[in-house]
Amino acid sequence: MRLALEEAGRAFELDEIPVGAVLVNGGKVIARAHNLCEAGGDATSHAEILCIREASRGLGARLDGCTLYCTLEPCAMCTGAAILSRVSRIVFGAFDIRAGCCGSVIDMADGWFNHSIEVIGGVMEEECAALLHAFFSSKRRS
Amino acid sequence: MRLALEEAGRAFELDEIPVGAVLVNGGKVIARAHNLCEAGGDATSHAEILCIREASRGLGARLDGCTLYCTLEPCAMCTGAAILSRVSRIVFGAFDIRAGCCGSVIDMADGWFNHSIEVIGGVMEEECAALLHAFFSSKRRS
Repeated sequence: MRLALEEAGRAFELDEIPVGAVLVNGGKVIARAHNLCEAGGDATSHAEILCIREASRGLGARLDGCTLYCTLEPCAMCTGAAILSRVSRIVFGAFDIRAGCCGSVIDMADGWFNHSIEVIGGVMEEECAALLHAFFSSKRRS
Repeated sequence: MRLALEEAGRAFELDEIPVGAVLVNGGKVIARAHNLCEAGGDATSHAEILCIREASRGLGARLDGCTLYCTLEPCAMCTGAAILSRVSRIVFGAFDIRAGCCGSVIDMADGWFNHSIEVIGGVMEEECAALLHAFFSSKRRS
């Protein structure tokens, strides 16, 4: 999660909503990414999607056994992508009560589809949330 | 939908699950794509995602006013991407009772998040479903 936070910090520096993600397989980091929606002008460029795409280039479409660490609870698109690519575990930091699909709005990872994902939320929650708060506070001031 | 079916046909020829998608804005086709999961070894390469990414390169991250035509009911990832990019309408052909998130498993487009999408399902359903059945029948025979 510390690496995912580093990625979120990079997004912050780029004036992107500071969310980072890291994919780990057997204790080894196989992909890391940060949110790039603004830079790419593309709402699908969430950190988690970029991470899954990067990992898929190496491992193929199935990411069985992998853990996805994200600083913010994944949205519907990202949880859906994790289910499709058969990620085994999602560990996230801050909860997203408006859009989070790993328990907040809905728990899509648990039993809705033909693949379920173990989810652990609230890991390093304060640090992950603090970065988001700092970002949105700076936006309100500007 | 006829164009989306053409795209699905291209996926079929490439031995991909035959799903196609077309994005239309003001009566004009702004993106068209077919499923490329096998070719790219990437479970996120659904026709709808590729379409939204292509359109975003031209129009930016917000696709207000656009209609997404897809031959199969969008999954969680694709419906989530359509919500994030603020697509106005989804028109789909065949229903997906196992993974469809525009009414079959869940209706994510209607009221769950801060953007809702008008959905029309079952348009040219027989043709869209027939292509999928033909694909899976050929797989079972081989």
